Amino acid sequence: MIKAKQQSPRTPKALRPGASAKRAAALVAPPVVLIAPQLGENIGFAARAMGNFGLHELRLVAPRDGWPNEKANAAAAVAGAIVDGAHVYQTPEQALGDLTFVLAATARPRDMIKPVLNPESAARELTRRARRGERTGLMFGPEASGLGNDVLALADALVTAPVDPSLASLSLPQAVLLLSYEWLKAQTPQPSLGRATTFDGPAAEGVKFPDTRPATRSELFGLFEHLEHELDRSGFLRPAEKRATMTRNVRNMFHRMGLTEQDVRTWRGIVASLVRPGQTRKS
Amino acid sequence: MIKAKQQSPRTPKALRPGASAKRAAALVAPPVVLIAPQLGENIGFAARAMGNFGLHELRLVAPRDGWPNEKANAAAAVAGAIVDGAHVYQTPEQALGDLTFVLAATARPRDMIKPVLNPESAARELTRRARRGERTGLMFGPEASGLGNDVLALADALVTAPVDPSLASLSLPQAVLLLSYEWLKAQTPQPSLGRATTFDGPAAEGVKFPDTRPATRSELFGLFEHLEHELDRSGFLRPAEKRATMTRNVRNMFHRMGLTEQDVRTWRGIVASLVRPGQTRKS
Repeated sequence: MIKAKQQSPRTPKALRPGASAKRAAALVAPPVVLIAPQLGENIGFAARAMGNFGLHELRLVAPRDGWPNEKANAAAAVAGAIVDGAHVYQTPEQALGDLTFVLAATARPRDMIKPVLNPESAARELTRRARRGERTGLMFGPEASGLGNDVLALADALVTAPVDPSLASLSLPQAVLLLSYEWLKAQTPQPSLGRATTFDGPAAEGVKFPDTRPATRSELFGLFEHLEHELDRSGFLRPAEKRATMTRNVRNMFHRMGLTEQDVRTWRGIVASLVRPGQTRKS
Repeated sequence: MIKAKQQSPRTPKALRPGASAKRAAALVAPPVVLIAPQLGENIGFAARAMGNFGLHELRLVAPRDGWPNEKANAAAAVAGAIVDGAHVYQTPEQALGDLTFVLAATARPRDMIKPVLNPESAARELTRRARRGERTGLMFGPEASGLGNDVLALADALVTAPVDPSLASLSLPQAVLLLSYEWLKAQTPQPSLGRATTFDGPAAEGVKFPDTRPATRSELFGLFEHLEHELDRSGFLRPAEKRATMTRNVRNMFHRMGLTEQDVRTWRGIVASLVRPGQTRKS
């Protein structure tokens, strides 16, 4: 996101830096340009992938089986409107005419002097440029052969997804899906969830507490005392020199559960019920 | 499966940081567990998605149309070996039995107190645990309905992909693709292109690895059955129509504890001791 040059001639006012984070939805998403797609199903699956991640503009260059194509509509499922709204062009040059920055998806890096991005950095680059008001696009080749060198030459950079070389066979809709997914990610800071790299402690982030509130420490202590009292009586917490370690372990396990107030009552009910069957049901 | 305690308390030698980048291939990738998948095509597309990104182990629980399924083979394309090698199970419990950490893919966060990860952080978590020798798994539900609450209760955390809410309709193979893609990314530092947002490096922080290993799912199920058997006897799990909800809640709490094998033995000892004081001390 380029900060300086606020009054830059190319940045529409609504998309100026500062507004951009909150206005991500207002960004013009890149059209997906399919060059000579072969199967209607794949066009439909590609549209469905786009729709899942906020891309809506589909451009088709010389689809092999003509247009419209019923199989495309069937495969698109809820994304039928994207298929219906697709524009058809005769040549790649026409389809890309209004764009200022075009990425071409390829299965392997080619012998071309062009930058090669992975989907994630490609999406960031597209987002960065869209924020400046540029018209970007994503281009994909025909299923069987991919994009030829002549068409690749129309792109500013290439995008290649990392794959397992031993079994790589990314289909056209799969490639569209990955780029679309990364596009949405690039505009959606994922503050709380994305950083959850450690997971061993109480799961603090991203945890929903429905209908109830987290237990207070005193409620937890009440549970501990209840359980430990019964375990003292039953003889579990022996020998005495091990008691401290054992109770600490059990308390730690309860802490890791991130108990709600309701959960504490459930556990007290469980303990009471195991000790005196048939009597208590506190929960 | 903790292999090499001798060399290092937490990291098998071959997977130590430094070696990790080159040895990523040696990590045990998570099996993909499809619960009651409906369409053979989707199983095949899922296998193809897995193969692209280095996942090879497919487990099927009660596939609707039986197994083997020709449509699955046809759709898998070059990933036919993954389909041929799939194992079929009768129940989710059987399919997950040997795993120590299970993520469940859901379309929306549920009213369950479980951590919710996005695909990227999920993949980092899986990778981090695989590096420690844990057996992880990725679970997906049937196309029409997704995973039910009873099956979700078997998971340690949920994974939900960010989607455009206005047109979200992520198919089963698409979901498998995204998770598989992020799995490969998480193990593949992309130094020149990305800004390292994809790769946190070997997990250094916050990881406690005690002298024991994480409990397997079978060990957990054994504990659940033991406790629930006693709670049935004691009358806690009544009325009958509430039993399912109550056991699910308790199971979820145990999952959140991240129990080790030793912890499971401690809990079995606690239950046995509360029920029959003075007799058992299993721990």
